[in-house]
Amino acid sequence: MAAEASNFLKYVDEHEEDFIQRLAKAVSIPSVSGNIGYIKDVEAMAEWLLQQLISLGVKAEKRAIGQHKLEGKDVDLPPVIIGQLGNDPNKKTLLIYGHYDVQPALYEDGWHYPCFELTQDPSGSGRMYGRGSTDDKGPIMAWLNVLEAHQKLGKELPVNLKMCFEGMEENGSENLDKFIESEKNGFFAGADCMCISDNYWLNTETPCLTYGLRGINYYEIRVNGPDRDLHSGVFGGTIHEPMTDLILLMSKLVTPAGEILIPGLKDLIAPVTDEEREKFEAIHFGVKDIHAAVGGDQTLTNDKVTTLMGRMRNPSLSLHGIEGAFSATGSKTVIPCSVKGKFSIRLVPNLTIKSVTDLVVKYLDAEFKKLGSKNRCEVVLGHGGEPWMADFTHYSYRAAHKATEDVYGQAPDYTREGGSIPVTLDFADILGLNVLLLPVGRGDDGAHSTDEKLDRDNYIRGTKLLGSYMYELAAISK
Amino acid sequence: MAAEASNFLKYVDEHEEDFIQRLAKAVSIPSVSGNIGYIKDVEAMAEWLLQQLISLGVKAEKRAIGQHKLEGKDVDLPPVIIGQLGNDPNKKTLLIYGHYDVQPALYEDGWHYPCFELTQDPSGSGRMYGRGSTDDKGPIMAWLNVLEAHQKLGKELPVNLKMCFEGMEENGSENLDKFIESEKNGFFAGADCMCISDNYWLNTETPCLTYGLRGINYYEIRVNGPDRDLHSGVFGGTIHEPMTDLILLMSKLVTPAGEILIPGLKDLIAPVTDEEREKFEAIHFGVKDIHAAVGGDQTLTNDKVTTLMGRMRNPSLSLHGIEGAFSATGSKTVIPCSVKGKFSIRLVPNLTIKSVTDLVVKYLDAEFKKLGSKNRCEVVLGHGGEPWMADFTHYSYRAAHKATEDVYGQAPDYTREGGSIPVTLDFADILGLNVLLLPVGRGDDGAHSTDEKLDRDNYIRGTKLLGSYMYELAAISK
Ligand SMILES: [Zn+2]
Ligand SMILES: [Zn+2]
Ligand SMILES: [Zn+2]
Ligand SMILES: [Zn+2]
Repeated sequence: MAAEASNFLKYVDEHEEDFIQRLAKAVSIPSVSGNIGYIKDVEAMAEWLLQQLISLGVKAEKRAIGQHKLEGKDVDLPPVIIGQLGNDPNKKTLLIYGHYDVQPALYEDGWHYPCFELTQDPSGSGRMYGRGSTDDKGPIMAWLNVLEAHQKLGKELPVNLKMCFEGMEENGSENLDKFIESEKNGFFAGADCMCISDNYWLNTETPCLTYGLRGINYYEIRVNGPDRDLHSGVFGGTIHEPMTDLILLMSKLVTPAGEILIPGLKDLIAPVTDEEREKFEAIHFGVKDIHAAVGGDQTLTNDKVTTLMGRMRNPSLSLHGIEGAFSATGSKTVIPCSVKGKFSIRLVPNLTIKSVTDLVVKYLDAEFKKLGSKNRCEVVLGHGGEPWMADFTHYSYRAAHKATEDVYGQAPDYTREGGSIPVTLDFADILGLNVLLLPVGRGDDGAHSTDEKLDRDNYIRGTKLLGSYMYELAAISK
Repeated sequence: MAAEASNFLKYVDEHEEDFIQRLAKAVSIPSVSGNIGYIKDVEAMAEWLLQQLISLGVKAEKRAIGQHKLEGKDVDLPPVIIGQLGNDPNKKTLLIYGHYDVQPALYEDGWHYPCFELTQDPSGSGRMYGRGSTDDKGPIMAWLNVLEAHQKLGKELPVNLKMCFEGMEENGSENLDKFIESEKNGFFAGADCMCISDNYWLNTETPCLTYGLRGINYYEIRVNGPDRDLHSGVFGGTIHEPMTDLILLMSKLVTPAGEILIPGLKDLIAPVTDEEREKFEAIHFGVKDIHAAVGGDQTLTNDKVTTLMGRMRNPSLSLHGIEGAFSATGSKTVIPCSVKGKFSIRLVPNLTIKSVTDLVVKYLDAEFKKLGSKNRCEVVLGHGGEPWMADFTHYSYRAAHKATEDVYGQAPDYTREGGSIPVTLDFADILGLNVLLLPVGRGDDGAHSTDEKLDRDNYIRGTKLLGSYMYELAAISK
């Protein structure tokens, strides 16, 4: 532990209740970015956050980033709030990100507590319920707590801090990439590394550092035949049915054991290094954790490392559904004339959007030709997102590792997310920075669900973690 | 031509306009059985038809057949109208069927003419537009025309006629089977054979007799895995996905060329007799007719007989869609936890509901076991309908053949329908009668579509055909 941090830690312990009040205030502003009815609340949240930063000594400002359509109306995008504290050329400069908007929440959805009122679990578990408690107001408040401690203690931060908080993360982060691009050589210039706290521990007990995200290619296989839907009584047995072709093509993509059948795709996967394997072996996780999460025993394997790699560092292919076919309950004897099969492939290094698409299109074109069908087939990439992986040996990760040991008394797990967090790529690619994903909350926090919560212990220790990380970052050699 | 029919035919020619007025009156009553808003019109149609029959000398009555739920309300089923004319033990007794209800029709659906007003094509083509013109009011009015001619000419019918008209055909013929059963030894006793005019020529030029219908087994393959839908980013690559299993099973049912892959199913098909093959070869039909009907060149073959047998006398398997998977436009990265694949098999002699289901379930169970999946799979028969085929060498068919030659100057095609007409089976099975399907309208009449029509020529010659059929039936040796 960096010795200078000790009075900071003491301050945190002595101000738990104040910090919880700060989070309660943040949760009480229903800053839902996806509904026009909450537009004033998003504004109010931005203003409150700005004033908090200013009162904590941050040189902060709101930045307009354009307009968008919300429920059919043209409205201003929520502002980006940027702030800076410290400008010492002898210190490292850390960039942090968070989002002050939240997912929608309605009591009728099945909440057991008021959605926008931070509620302590009456059983004394330490759970604090409320929309945004863990996603992502808790982590932002933890940073404010760190700033308050230093202000009140009259201590300078050990690093220069640059902050970027947006209010559109839950609604697509529109224009944030343009903002980052436009301020690349402005506000963002000089940042040494970046820390984002907007994901979760893999389980409920073990802190972790997250160094990778899978990308995704989403495809449609479009098979077109007759120019109208037909009755199977009249035409069944006389024509090439588009569904028959589509189902056969979709059946050739992946085996029930999850093996992707697209030739050449496996060859693109970056070889597993010894260091990576060690990180996977060290993760605190059991296959039973997945059984609990899915409500069944459908894991492909009972081996921990294989399961974790299946989720985090290997591509996967899922068949999502078919558009244009009969999909309601009951029975309908239709021969659909035009159907679109939907599937996606999760990407990992070194698969790219383009290299995978080339293989997919080539393979499916060839398989379709084999069918001898008179229908027409086309494979279309809907959207693509590249995979991301950070160098987890970077000093920022080493600093976070030490800080975790300081605060939690144990080494963190090194995890990757199976899904994507698009802002991570925007920052990493545009600014060329090492990005550390440093979660504050637990795997069962239920971001986006009913009864979203943050554990009091995670909030308080999270505050300590972020502060300690700054100290370790300042102390560590690049 | 039976000589006694000549003044009947003359009467028809002299009363074309009257007969068209009769059809116009029938079409003007919007007897839609599927909407509660038309319940009074269905009643009015039944009453009008009853009065017509009585005025034409028929001993007719309305029979209540119970209640049903229509748009959530308990209401009386439309009555069955039964009638009898003639009771001469030395004559054959013919049973006829028709339905006085119609499909819904809204001008906004794209009609070019008023839906419930018989409208002559202004171009003089002879087309008479209006809902129910061909399905099934035209054929019923043709029978009434026959009766009128005989009444006015003071002629007895050459056969005893029993009539059964229902008002629920377009809404499932509910309780009709029970009615037939209950009157098997009552009203229906003594019928020698049956004639139903409720289907259409195969094309627009050639009259036909229809002697077969395919049955149908409608199945669901239900694959269940996790107990909730999952995110493919988090769980893709770690579990057995129900969609992967389902798509693979569905891909093993039928080839793109339409060949059914269920072992043993082909062996159940009744061998083609020489007589049957001759009937198929004689049908006036070209593969281009299918191209026109489907708006594309997707026929499995260009051979006429193979195509016709594919439609009429061979089983076919169509994949209709999937319930529970993503089916909207756009993209959703869901792993559905529970999916139902829907497919149906059209049945022909000697496939039965049960024998086919046994093969299907056995095959799919075995294929699912091969997948090595931890999901659960179940194959369920939704509904089944047996195939039907009449003896087309029966004297009723021979009589209709002669009548067609009399009226149209050409031998009829012998066709089968690829779909089902459930009442046919009810009458054939319960009463044990030979049923002749004797269409009045053409293949392009558009029953159930916008701009439903009946050609004036088909209506007038149809009236002659039904009358002549009676005379030939009376004359022919059993
Ligand atoms: Zn978030
Ligand atoms: Zn979120
Ligand atoms: Zn009909
Ligand atoms: Zn109909």
